[in-house]
Amino acid sequence: MMNWQGLEGDKPHPAQIMDRMSDFAFSQRASRTHAQPISYLMQQALHNPNLISLAAGLVDYTTLPGADTAELLQQILSSPNTASAALQYGTTEGLIELRAELLSHFEQLNGWQSADINVSTDDLVITTGSQQMLFILGDVLIDPDDIVLSAWPSYFVFTDTLASQGAQVRGIDMDEQGIRPEALDAVLKQLDDAGDLPRVKMLYLVSYHQNPTGITLSAERRPQVLQIIQRYSKDHRILIVEDAAYRELTYNNEAPPSIKRYDTGNEYVALLQTFSKPFAPGVRCGYGLLPHDLVDPVVLQKGNHDFGSANLTQHLMLAALRTGIYQHQVSKLCSSYAHKRDVMLDALDDQLGEIGDGVHWTRPNGGLYIYLTLPPSVDTGRASALFRRAIEEGMIYVPGEFCYGNDPTRPIPNNQIRLSFGVAEPDQIRTGIERLARAIKAIMAQNVQVHSPG
Amino acid sequence: MMNWQGLEGDKPHPAQIMDRMSDFAFSQRASRTHAQPISYLMQQALHNPNLISLAAGLVDYTTLPGADTAELLQQILSSPNTASAALQYGTTEGLIELRAELLSHFEQLNGWQSADINVSTDDLVITTGSQQMLFILGDVLIDPDDIVLSAWPSYFVFTDTLASQGAQVRGIDMDEQGIRPEALDAVLKQLDDAGDLPRVKMLYLVSYHQNPTGITLSAERRPQVLQIIQRYSKDHRILIVEDAAYRELTYNNEAPPSIKRYDTGNEYVALLQTFSKPFAPGVRCGYGLLPHDLVDPVVLQKGNHDFGSANLTQHLMLAALRTGIYQHQVSKLCSSYAHKRDVMLDALDDQLGEIGDGVHWTRPNGGLYIYLTLPPSVDTGRASALFRRAIEEGMIYVPGEFCYGNDPTRPIPNNQIRLSFGVAEPDQIRTGIERLARAIKAIMAQNVQVHSPG
Repeated sequence: MMNWQGLEGDKPHPAQIMDRMSDFAFSQRASRTHAQPISYLMQQALHNPNLISLAAGLVDYTTLPGADTAELLQQILSSPNTASAALQYGTTEGLIELRAELLSHFEQLNGWQSADINVSTDDLVITTGSQQMLFILGDVLIDPDDIVLSAWPSYFVFTDTLASQGAQVRGIDMDEQGIRPEALDAVLKQLDDAGDLPRVKMLYLVSYHQNPTGITLSAERRPQVLQIIQRYSKDHRILIVEDAAYRELTYNNEAPPSIKRYDTGNEYVALLQTFSKPFAPGVRCGYGLLPHDLVDPVVLQKGNHDFGSANLTQHLMLAALRTGIYQHQVSKLCSSYAHKRDVMLDALDDQLGEIGDGVHWTRPNGGLYIYLTLPPSVDTGRASALFRRAIEEGMIYVPGEFCYGNDPTRPIPNNQIRLSFGVAEPDQIRTGIERLARAIKAIMAQNVQVHSPG
Repeated sequence: MMNWQGLEGDKPHPAQIMDRMSDFAFSQRASRTHAQPISYLMQQALHNPNLISLAAGLVDYTTLPGADTAELLQQILSSPNTASAALQYGTTEGLIELRAELLSHFEQLNGWQSADINVSTDDLVITTGSQQMLFILGDVLIDPDDIVLSAWPSYFVFTDTLASQGAQVRGIDMDEQGIRPEALDAVLKQLDDAGDLPRVKMLYLVSYHQNPTGITLSAERRPQVLQIIQRYSKDHRILIVEDAAYRELTYNNEAPPSIKRYDTGNEYVALLQTFSKPFAPGVRCGYGLLPHDLVDPVVLQKGNHDFGSANLTQHLMLAALRTGIYQHQVSKLCSSYAHKRDVMLDALDDQLGEIGDGVHWTRPNGGLYIYLTLPPSVDTGRASALFRRAIEEGMIYVPGEFCYGNDPTRPIPNNQIRLSFGVAEPDQIRTGIERLARAIKAIMAQNVQVHSPG
C-alpha cells in the first residue's frame, strides 16, 4: 500500500480522511507514476505573476486563431448534416475525411506519394494530442523492465510516461546534428552483447527542433538511424517513434524529409504530428502514421481509452485544412515565432556573449526552445542557488536535469537550461534573459570566490 | 510474439508486410486486448443500409443541438480573452470554472450540499467521455489477476477494458431493482473465505437505467450496497465505481439520489457522469467525483495520457450550463426518448405480448435500452440461427452474451437481447420490432418441431 501524501503538498485534509488516506490498494503502474516536476514550475509561475516564465511550453496567446475557428465552426454547425455528424460519436481511429486530408498533408510536407512508403488512410490514427499516441505506443509495446532508447536529453513528459509503464531509458548522445549514429550503434551493440536486445522496444526522438534543445536531426543521419535500428531488429522489430510535433514551425531553411521517408515498407517508423503547436492546443488533436501491423493494437487500446477523440474538433480541423485557414495560420505563427526566437538569441548574445568559455547555446531553425549550457560547475537544478536566484531576479526556466530519462547507466547533467520563447512577448523575453544573465553572473562570481585560493 | 491476423479480418496485405506481420514484440497488455465484439455489429449495419439497427448505443441524430452549440461557440470565440483561453492548453484535471459548475450540478441532481458528502471542486476531474475515467480507474487500481465485481450483465466496453488490464470479473446477480445485496454479500463472503479479498479492487455498476437492461438500482438498495462494500473493505478500501451515464435521461418518476449520497466521508464511491448522452457525444466530455485520495493518482495517469481533454469543448459545456441551454436540451431529449421508449414497448406488447411463457422484457424509466429475455432454448448469440434470421428479416440487435464479463465461475446466458431506441426513428423502431418478432417466432417454431416427438 502506498502513501500519496508526498504528492499532496501541504493541502489540509479532514481528519477522517487522513486516517484512511493510503488504504486503497493501488496498482504497480500507479506506484510508478510520479508528479511531473514541471508542475512545480507552473505553480511557481501562478503564485508570482511578476515572474517572467521562459519555462512553459505553451503557445503564444496572441496568435491563437479565435476568429477563424469561430467562422469554421459556424459553417460546420449551421448545416444540419454536418452539425449532427460533428456532434455524434465518431470512430475510434478518427474521422475518415480528416485522415485522408492528413495523408495528403504528409505528402506535401515530405514530397512523397503515399505509395512510395506503402501507406494508406488505414495507417493514420487520430488521438487526443500526440501525447495520447505516445502513451498508447508505450502501452502496446512496453512491459515492465523493457528498454527504450531516447535522445539524451529528450522530451521529459514522454520519458516519465515510459517510466510509469515500467520502461528503462538508455540515452543516446546528441550533437548539433541530432543523435549521433555511432552512439546509437554503440548502445545497441552493448545491449546486444549483454543479451538485452529482446527488451529493447523503441527508439524515441523529436526529429525537428527538438524539445528541449531546438536541434533538428540532419538529413544525412536520418537514413543512417533507420539502418541501425533495422540491423538490430533481430529478435523483433524495434519501433522508431518519430515525434515531429514542431516540424511545421520551421523558420529559415526548409526542413529535411521525415525519417519515415526512408521506411519504404512502412515497417519501422511511427510518425507523429499534432495540431497543438501549429494551430491551437485547445483542440487537442494529434495524428500518427503507423506501421500497418501497429494500427489494430493501437486502435484497440484507444477503444478502451475513449473510443475516439472529440469528434467536433476533428471536424474543425478538417475544415481548417480544406479551406487553407490552417496553412495560413502556420505561416502567421512562423513569422511571429521566428521574430521571438531572434529576440531571444540577440538578448543572449548581448547578455552572455562575452561571458567566456563554457557558456553556449543552440541556434534553432524552428520550434519553441533554445538550450543553454553553463560550465559544469554551475548547477542549474531545481534545488540550486542559480534557480533560486533566477526566481529572485524575476524569471523562471526549466532546469536541464528535468529533460533526462531514468537511464541507470549514466549521470544526469545538471548545468543546462531550457528556455522557451513560446508564450512570452518580445519585451518580456529581453527582460527575462537580462534577469537570467544577472543570476548566472552572480552565481559564477560566487563560484570563483569559493574556488579561488585564499 | 503475437499474430494480429485474427483481428485484421480478411484485408489483403502486401507480401513484404505479411512476411514481417507479427514481429513486433507486443506487451502483455496488448496481448490481452481484443476487438470489441460490437464492432462486428457496426460493420454489418454499415454494409447493409436497409438493416434497421436496434443495436447501436448512439444518440438520436435529430435532437443533437447544432444551432445552440454554434451560438455558444460564437460567444466564446468572439471575445479575444475567452477565445485564447479556450484555444490554449488547459489543465490536466479540467477547466476549474466547469468543475465548479458541475459540483453545483451534482448538488441540484442529488439534493445535497457538497459539504454533506465532504467534496470540493478538487475532487472533480474532467475526462474524454466517462470511458477515459473508467480506463484510468482500472489502471490505477488493477494489477493482473485482480478481481472486479460487476453487475451481471453489465456495460461490456468497461468489462472488456478491465480484461485488457488483466482483471477477472465476478458477476453479481440482478433483479428488477438492480444488483441484489444478498448476491453481493455472498460473492464477497466466498472470496473472503478463499483468501481472495486482497485481489478485490472495485465494484462496477451502472446505477440508473443500466446498460444493457435499463434497470435502476432501487433507492432502498443504495445504502445497503455501500454498507456491504464497507464491511468487506478489510484489507484495503474497495472502490464503488458508480457509472451514472444515463441518469439525466429519466422519463417518468424522479431518479433516486446517487449511491454517492451515502458516502458521507467521500471515501468509497467514484460517481461518473458524461455530457455524451444528455447533450452531444461529439464533445467527448465526461466528469467524475472521486474519493479525495484517488484524485492525484488519477490526474497523474491522465497527465501521461493527454495532459487534459479538449479545452475548447470544456469551455462549450461551461457556457451551455451557465446559459441553461444544457438543461433545456436535457428536457427536450427526455421527451423525445420517452416517446421512442413507449413506441418500442408498445411494439413489443403488440408483437410478442401473446407469445407466452419465457418471453419477457424490461420497462425502463429512462436511458436508451430495453432488455429482452427469451426461453433458455432460444440462442440469441452472434453465431445463432436467430441472429442470422433477424439480419435476413432486416434488423440487428446486440446479443446478450456480449454483455457479460469474463467471470470464470459461471456460464454466460445466451438467450437475451439488448434493444436500443436511441438512434432509430419511431417508424423504424416499430418495423424493427416487427422484423425481430418474425425472426423469433420462426426460430421458436423450428425449435418446437425439432424438439417435438416424431
